[in-house]
Amino acid sequence: MSSYVRNAWYMAAWAEQVPDGGFLSRRLLDRLWLIWRLSDGSIAMIEDRCPHRFVALSKGRRDGDRVVCGYHGLGFDSTGQCVHSPFPDVQPRAQVATMYAVERHLGIWFWPGDPALADPASIPDYAYLDGDRPAERGHLVIKGNYELMTDNLMDLTHAEFIHVESFGTNGSIFIGKQSVKQEPDGAIWNNWDIAGAEPPGWAAPMLEEGAKIDQWLHMRWHAPANMDLSIGIAKADSNRAELVVPPLRNPHIVTPETTGTSHYFYDHAPGEAEAAQARRVFLEEDEPMIESAEEALAGQDFWDARPLILASDAGAIRARRRLMQMRRSEAVAANEA
Amino acid sequence: MSSYVRNAWYMAAWAEQVPDGGFLSRRLLDRLWLIWRLSDGSIAMIEDRCPHRFVALSKGRRDGDRVVCGYHGLGFDSTGQCVHSPFPDVQPRAQVATMYAVERHLGIWFWPGDPALADPASIPDYAYLDGDRPAERGHLVIKGNYELMTDNLMDLTHAEFIHVESFGTNGSIFIGKQSVKQEPDGAIWNNWDIAGAEPPGWAAPMLEEGAKIDQWLHMRWHAPANMDLSIGIAKADSNRAELVVPPLRNPHIVTPETTGTSHYFYDHAPGEAEAAQARRVFLEEDEPMIESAEEALAGQDFWDARPLILASDAGAIRARRRLMQMRRSEAVAANEA
Amino acid sequence: MSSYVRNAWYMAAWAEQVPDGGFLSRRLLDRLWLIWRLSDGSIAMIEDRCPHRFVALSKGRRDGDRVVCGYHGLGFDSTGQCVHSPFPDVQPRAQVATMYAVERHLGIWFWPGDPALADPASIPDYAYLDGDRPAERGHLVIKGNYELMTDNLMDLTHAEFIHVESFGTNGSIFIGKQSVKQEPDGAIWNNWDIAGAEPPGWAAPMLEEGAKIDQWLHMRWHAPANMDLSIGIAKADSNRAELVVPPLRNPHIVTPETTGTSHYFYDHAPGEAEAAQARRVFLEEDEPMIESAEEALAGQDFWDARPLILASDAGAIRARRRLMQMRRSEAVAANEA
Repeated sequence: MSSYVRNAWYMAAWAEQVPDGGFLSRRLLDRLWLIWRLSDGSIAMIEDRCPHRFVALSKGRRDGDRVVCGYHGLGFDSTGQCVHSPFPDVQPRAQVATMYAVERHLGIWFWPGDPALADPASIPDYAYLDGDRPAERGHLVIKGNYELMTDNLMDLTHAEFIHVESFGTNGSIFIGKQSVKQEPDGAIWNNWDIAGAEPPGWAAPMLEEGAKIDQWLHMRWHAPANMDLSIGIAKADSNRAELVVPPLRNPHIVTPETTGTSHYFYDHAPGEAEAAQARRVFLEEDEPMIESAEEALAGQDFWDARPLILASDAGAIRARRRLMQMRRSEAVAANEA
Repeated sequence: MSSYVRNAWYMAAWAEQVPDGGFLSRRLLDRLWLIWRLSDGSIAMIEDRCPHRFVALSKGRRDGDRVVCGYHGLGFDSTGQCVHSPFPDVQPRAQVATMYAVERHLGIWFWPGDPALADPASIPDYAYLDGDRPAERGHLVIKGNYELMTDNLMDLTHAEFIHVESFGTNGSIFIGKQSVKQEPDGAIWNNWDIAGAEPPGWAAPMLEEGAKIDQWLHMRWHAPANMDLSIGIAKADSNRAELVVPPLRNPHIVTPETTGTSHYFYDHAPGEAEAAQARRVFLEEDEPMIESAEEALAGQDFWDARPLILASDAGAIRARRRLMQMRRSEAVAANEA
Repeated sequence: MSSYVRNAWYMAAWAEQVPDGGFLSRRLLDRLWLIWRLSDGSIAMIEDRCPHRFVALSKGRRDGDRVVCGYHGLGFDSTGQCVHSPFPDVQPRAQVATMYAVERHLGIWFWPGDPALADPASIPDYAYLDGDRPAERGHLVIKGNYELMTDNLMDLTHAEFIHVESFGTNGSIFIGKQSVKQEPDGAIWNNWDIAGAEPPGWAAPMLEEGAKIDQWLHMRWHAPANMDLSIGIAKADSNRAELVVPPLRNPHIVTPETTGTSHYFYDHAPGEAEAAQARRVFLEEDEPMIESAEEALAGQDFWDARPLILASDAGAIRARRRLMQMRRSEAVAANEA
């Protein structure tokens, strides 16, 4: 069985990571891919490997919408077809693997399965990213399997331990009510709703002395590991009407680079200090845990390691099970074909 | 067949390496272990891996005698039992693997086999370490299998080649008499007794001109790789009564970290220069040889590589054979069970 | 089937890389070898691994023509025989693997197959290196399989893409005529002959304005990867009589270190700047392509990756096929034996 579900949308990059007039070369699901923007503004994505001597095409150059291999000069168009040879009378028949890709919600999304099944309307909804929203985007490569990232993000109780100083958490989640919901489009929500809690330290000055808050932390997941977090803080007993701060919403999108490493796409408030803080929180607080789990499993299957399952894991475990079912279905279909 | 004998005492650390109020995390026999000192002074040793999301428990904190995982707050006692959850109404049933461990002769000793067979009285005798002896302890991690370390220490003729300058050896061992002895407790001794030899350069000024010495180098081995070296130098023909220097005795204790790397525990005279000298001799003179052999074997079994066996290897080879027999017996017993 | 043909001449080193009175230790075809010069001027080559405790003999010392292991003092002669023990009454019977090796054309050549078949007369002809030729020799270790190096050197069209600035190529090869020849001694030539081309930029000032040139680039290959390049530039229509620059001839000799890394032996005009330029061209222009192909194949067989074959590959492909036939023949012979 493949480590990856094929018929699903993955994010390859933030669109702004594709350089004007150049290439983005990125390892995704174990293979190296070449991404570039065509003159009509659309996105091309083909395997970053010349079929002649197997060097990365990204070591070559652009010739209009074509890619020219840097080693012996073969040219390829955005459909992966060889369309140019430096020898005038020769037209090699060769085809590079292609990937169905579209731009949506500031990201480049790709579908590694059957292109006939790829419906851009099923890309998870991050429409709020499209608007005039003050944010900058970040990208990190993490030394851990993408499902360990899902575990992290779908179980926010971890913030009470590893983000105490950075986020000012104070244990309020443990008096919260957890609920897990599924939606017809495959979304799984892991929601925490907390009533009458102490405010976090940074919010206390914005409230009357002794005032309590209601807080909600709602994480939405779409397979394989596309997540979206909504956070709200309101004065207690205001029926969530009197917000203490504007509601927060942030993408947390994870794409396998390999089975042991993951691309992590996120955003944050604009500014260099904010970018550094976002990186710091992730790299110093979350990443060591994920890397530690990756090392401990050392390639062992998560279920074979017989994990202890807590009630607070309900959303994370449901996401893992969904993904397992999808991979199994694809394996059965592949065997039948 | 396992690479390691299970029913045997190994040393995990010098006791002083376990920090007050903290943890020692150490890889031993391929697994990561967590060692800490309880308030009653005894030693706890459990696997350094949370059964929930598999992160190292050593990334967490102490809560009295308990360990609290740094990721989601589960607490474990010294028996590996989960005894705390941050959710007040939840009591997870989970158990971390434990290791039988005791403190003895300044070291932490552990028994990876059946705890019912673990008798602290069978820990090799290093009682001389307990006394008021001027010494400091050292620890190195070596890039070589632990049995290559045994080969090194059980065949001291190597000192005549790689320690000529550091120890002032002058070839006297080659006129010595080697004897190998076994004791009922499993000890194997590889002894060199040298009569009427030239003194080493550093000892010459302590003797009359032209005076000869008797010297003995006795190495004791207990499985798996716990060694102890006794050295004496006396005036020749004094029946070992007129010692030139006080007799020396030093532990040389080796514990596998992995099959290709080893912990080496030793001691030396107090002082920074002495510590540096001990490290230098080992790292610059012995370690390159051990690493070279490890690379040359590249995982191949020692016997499959058909080593040339010299008479001077008698002790080292007997130790290797004993260990092989022990591993075979355990493999047979495991198959029968 | 072995990754290497055995009954063939490989170059181990430039002769000047064998230090006077010392050793050269070099990994060749996956094994570590020890090379030294005997007092009669001939070359000895034995495995760099003591049969006693498997350490590299190169960590020892010379004793005349003998090698003395640095760990326990065993001595070996140039036939690999153990001829010395530090114990006077002991004569160990032990034999280190040897390699048939001779010095020729400034290089040390070895024959890993049946020594009875090794005929120094079949070493590829680099006799021009022996003369009074102003040149210095270079050696690099490349992160790529040796056949990827052959692909590079036997298809010089790559110079039109990756060496445009360093060599001033201007596309003239694409109007050239390619011919592939085989010789009875197994040589394969991949020749480009170009008539009436624009001169490269650096040659233009040496010609009348508008003058054209004839150019030839002839690469000779002998298995496994011993190549030799001849370059000439003459005024067009002079029947190659009026040379623009003296003819160039250079060795390009490749020997596997491992299946994924290669020794590359070459030469260049004398001088530090020339040495730096030769290294720069290879390391910055060729090596990234070869390493990229090595990474893309990731151990996959070249043919299994179904390479696109161009007409310009004719020489490189013929060399690959010849080598494949040789390896197959040796595998069949080995099975029959």
